[in-house]
Amino acid sequence: MPLSSQAILAQLTALVGPESVIGEVEKMGAWLNEPRRRFHIPAAAVVRPATVEQVQAIARWANAAGVGLIPQGGNTGLVGAQVPLRGDEVIVSLARLDRIRAIDVAAGTMTAEAGVILETAHAAAEAENTIFPLWLASQGSARIGGVLSSNAGGVNVLAYGNARELTMGVEAVLADGRLYRGLNSLKKDNTGYDLKDLLVGAEGTLGIITAATLKIFPKPEDYETCLVNLTGPEAALDLFQMLRARIGGRLNAFEIVPAIGLDMQLRHGFLDRDPTAGPSPWYGLVEVSRMQGSEPGALMDAIEAAFGTGMIENAVFAESLEERTRMWAFREQMSEVQSREGASIKHDVSVPIAAVPRLIAEGSAAALRLCPGIRPVPFGHMGDGNIHFNFSQPAGADPKAFMAQYDEAMHEAIYEVVLRLGGSISAEHGIGQLKTGLLRQVKDPVALEMMAAIKTALDPKGILNPGKMLG
Amino acid sequence: MPLSSQAILAQLTALVGPESVIGEVEKMGAWLNEPRRRFHIPAAAVVRPATVEQVQAIARWANAAGVGLIPQGGNTGLVGAQVPLRGDEVIVSLARLDRIRAIDVAAGTMTAEAGVILETAHAAAEAENTIFPLWLASQGSARIGGVLSSNAGGVNVLAYGNARELTMGVEAVLADGRLYRGLNSLKKDNTGYDLKDLLVGAEGTLGIITAATLKIFPKPEDYETCLVNLTGPEAALDLFQMLRARIGGRLNAFEIVPAIGLDMQLRHGFLDRDPTAGPSPWYGLVEVSRMQGSEPGALMDAIEAAFGTGMIENAVFAESLEERTRMWAFREQMSEVQSREGASIKHDVSVPIAAVPRLIAEGSAAALRLCPGIRPVPFGHMGDGNIHFNFSQPAGADPKAFMAQYDEAMHEAIYEVVLRLGGSISAEHGIGQLKTGLLRQVKDPVALEMMAAIKTALDPKGILNPGKMLG
Repeated sequence: MPLSSQAILAQLTALVGPESVIGEVEKMGAWLNEPRRRFHIPAAAVVRPATVEQVQAIARWANAAGVGLIPQGGNTGLVGAQVPLRGDEVIVSLARLDRIRAIDVAAGTMTAEAGVILETAHAAAEAENTIFPLWLASQGSARIGGVLSSNAGGVNVLAYGNARELTMGVEAVLADGRLYRGLNSLKKDNTGYDLKDLLVGAEGTLGIITAATLKIFPKPEDYETCLVNLTGPEAALDLFQMLRARIGGRLNAFEIVPAIGLDMQLRHGFLDRDPTAGPSPWYGLVEVSRMQGSEPGALMDAIEAAFGTGMIENAVFAESLEERTRMWAFREQMSEVQSREGASIKHDVSVPIAAVPRLIAEGSAAALRLCPGIRPVPFGHMGDGNIHFNFSQPAGADPKAFMAQYDEAMHEAIYEVVLRLGGSISAEHGIGQLKTGLLRQVKDPVALEMMAAIKTALDPKGILNPGKMLG
Repeated sequence: MPLSSQAILAQLTALVGPESVIGEVEKMGAWLNEPRRRFHIPAAAVVRPATVEQVQAIARWANAAGVGLIPQGGNTGLVGAQVPLRGDEVIVSLARLDRIRAIDVAAGTMTAEAGVILETAHAAAEAENTIFPLWLASQGSARIGGVLSSNAGGVNVLAYGNARELTMGVEAVLADGRLYRGLNSLKKDNTGYDLKDLLVGAEGTLGIITAATLKIFPKPEDYETCLVNLTGPEAALDLFQMLRARIGGRLNAFEIVPAIGLDMQLRHGFLDRDPTAGPSPWYGLVEVSRMQGSEPGALMDAIEAAFGTGMIENAVFAESLEERTRMWAFREQMSEVQSREGASIKHDVSVPIAAVPRLIAEGSAAALRLCPGIRPVPFGHMGDGNIHFNFSQPAGADPKAFMAQYDEAMHEAIYEVVLRLGGSISAEHGIGQLKTGLLRQVKDPVALEMMAAIKTALDPKGILNPGKMLG
C-alpha cells in the first residue's frame, strides 16, 4: 500500500531532520514552478539533503517504501523532467550539495557537486585562468547535476562538445542507495561499460548524480567575433564548411538568426542599437578563439577570403567587449523577445548539418500552408545542426485561439520534416514528461526496448523519476 | 543440454550455407592466432556472415540453442576478447560486412560496416579530402567493428578523441537477433539513454556492432612535426601544458620515448639514421595540424618560446615527408623493437596527465627494487596520460626464467602505483579475458554490479562473448 503524504513527511523528517523537508504545497513554489509554467502538479514533499550520505539514505528509504524520487537541480529544464507527474513523488533538491571539491589545472579537471550553479563553476574555472565552456541562457540558475542529467548543450558545443563530452566521470546514488563512485580524471580508461555516459543525459531515471569530474580548458587569450550578412541558410552552410576547414577546433560558435529576429529586438527595445552591418535576410554570428601566444586575425582572414568568393556580402567585427556582448545579446535574446509578439510554438530539433537549409525551407513552407500569416523564427546552432524552430503567431491574432488551433498540428508538421531528414525531435532539451508520447512514436522500437531493460535492471522498483523519459 | 560441435556445425551450415562456416580447427588459424599468441583455445566453429540479416539469424539461433558467440573483426586485439575462452563458442567474423555505405562530406560523416579495415576507411576519407583520424599500429588489419568494440585510441586522441568520440551512431545485432538501428548523423540528440556509447567499448558483450556512423574531418593542409630533447617527464609535462594553452585543439600528438628506445632501434637497424637532434634522456614527438588557408609556423613559434624559458634545449623539425615518417616510425616501432631485447613485461595504463612524471618515477623505482637490472621502457601518449609502461629483461638474462620470476610481481607493483595515482589498469587495450580477474580486484564494486545488471538485461542467456570483460 502506498504511503500517505503524512507518513512520507514523517519518515523523511526522521531521516534528515525537519529543516530539510518541505511539506506544505504553498511553500514549494521554487521547486514546482518551472520556466514555462506548463506543469502544475504538486509533490508529496521536497527534501533538501545536505550530504551524499543523506541522498543515499533517502534513496534506501524510498526504494523500501516504494516512493518515487525526482532529482532536481536549478529547476530550469524545459520538458518537465524535474517536476512531478503524478503528485505522490518526492522532489530531491540537490542544491545544498554545492561544493567545488577540487580544481586541478594541470590535469584539466574540476570536481563539482551536483548543486553547484553553472555560473559558479564558470567563475571557479576563470579564477584559475581556465574555462568550463558550457554556456547557457539559464547559467545563473542551472546546476551541474541538472546540466549533466539533461546533457545540456549551449553555444560552444561546436568547439567543446555538450555536457556529456565535458564530463570525465560522475558519482551517483542508485535507486537503492548504493553509491556509484565513478569520478575520475582519465582521458583513457577502457575498463568496462561506459556508465558515465549512461548516467549523463538519463534525466535522473537511472541514478541521482551527486558530483562530477568536469573538463576545464586553457582560457583563450581573446575572441574574434563577427556578424555576417547572409542571403540564407545555404550561404550559411557554405560559409560554415569553409570556416571549419580553415579554423577547425577553434571555431567556437556558428549561430544564425533571421531578419525578423533583429526586427523584433529593435522594435521592443531589446538592443540599444543595431549590431549588424546593415539589412540582410539572415545573420550569422561567428566566433573564433585566439589561443595564448598566437596572432589575431584568423577569422578576419577567413571572412576576407569568403568575400572574395562572393559567399558573403557584408560583415562587422566586434571591436570591443561591449560590441561582442551586444552581438551575443542579439542571439541570446531571441527566445525571450518572441514572448512580446504574442503566442509562439517552439521546436528544439536537430538534423544533419547539411540538411539545415532543407529543414528551414520545408518546415517554414509546411507551417505557412497550415497557417497563412504565421511568422517562422528559426534560429540557433547552425554548426551543430540544431535549430530552435520557433513560430510567432500571425500579427494581431488572438494568442489563445492561435494555440488551440495550431499547436498540435504545427508540431506534427515540423516533426514530419525533421524525421524525414534523419533528425531528432529533441536536440537539447530532452524528453522529460513533455515528449514521452512523441518519443514512443518516433524512436527505434529496439532502442526503446533496450532503454526499458536498462531502466528495469538499475531501478527495478521504478523509484527514480517515475514516468519520465520512458513514459 | 549443450549442443555438440557436430550439431553446431550442421545447424550453422543450414543457416548460412557451407561456404560461410569453418569447422576444422586446423583451418581456423587466422581467427584463433591473435597478435601475442597468448590464448590457445579453439572454437566450436567460425562463421562468416555476409549480411546483417545473417548476423541476426545466427544470433537468434544461438540464443535459442544456448551457444556462445564471439564477435571478431581483424583479430588484432591484445587482451583476448576476440578469441575463445571455453572452446564451445562460435566465432562470428564480421569481415565480409565490408561496405562503406555512405560518405557525406557536408555532414562530416562516413557510414561504414563492421568489417571495413581501418586503413580502407582512412583511404575512403582521404579520397574526399577529409580524414578519419584514428591511427593505430594495426590499422592495416584492424576492422571498424573491433576498433569500436574495444574503444581503440591511437596517436591522435589528443585532438580528435578515441573511437567512442569519433562515433556518432551504431547499428548492432542484439543477443536475441533484434537489430538496434542507431545510425545517425546528429551532433545533438537528447532522446533517450546513450546506447551508442554503451555498445562502443563493450567488447561485444552487449551487441554485435554491424555498422557505424563515423565522424570525418576536413583534411589539414599540412602538419608541423618535431622531435624535442627533454630532460625528463616533468619537462615533458611543462611543455605539454604550454603547447595546449597556445595551440589548443590543433595539437594532434604529444608522445614521449626514453633514450633507451632510440638506442634499441639504432642498434637493431630499425632506423636508417637518428631522427633526433642529438643525445637526450627523453624525446618528445609533437605534431600540430595546419588548417587550410592558415600560415605555417604555430609549432615553430611555440617551440621557440619554450627555448626562451629554458624548458627545452634542443629540437628538430621534420622538413620533408620522409623525415616526418622517420620520426613517427621511431615512436611506432617502440613495441616491436623490444622483442629483439628478450622478454618484456608490458602495461597499458593511464593516470591523470599531471601524474605521469610520478607514475614513471615511482613505477621504475618499484620495478628496479624487485629486479635490479630490469630496463624500464615507458613510452607513449603523454598528452592522454596513457603510458605503455613496458620493461625489458636485464641484458643477458634468461627470458623464460625472467618471466617466471617477475611477470606477476611486476604487474602487481606497477598497478599498485597506477591505482594509488587514480589511474586505470587498462587505458586502451581493454579487459577481454586477460584482465577479468584484475578488473574484479580494482574496479568500484558498484560499477561491477551495474555492469552485470546491464549485461543480464540485454543478454539474459549470456550468449554474447561469454566470460569476457565481466568474467
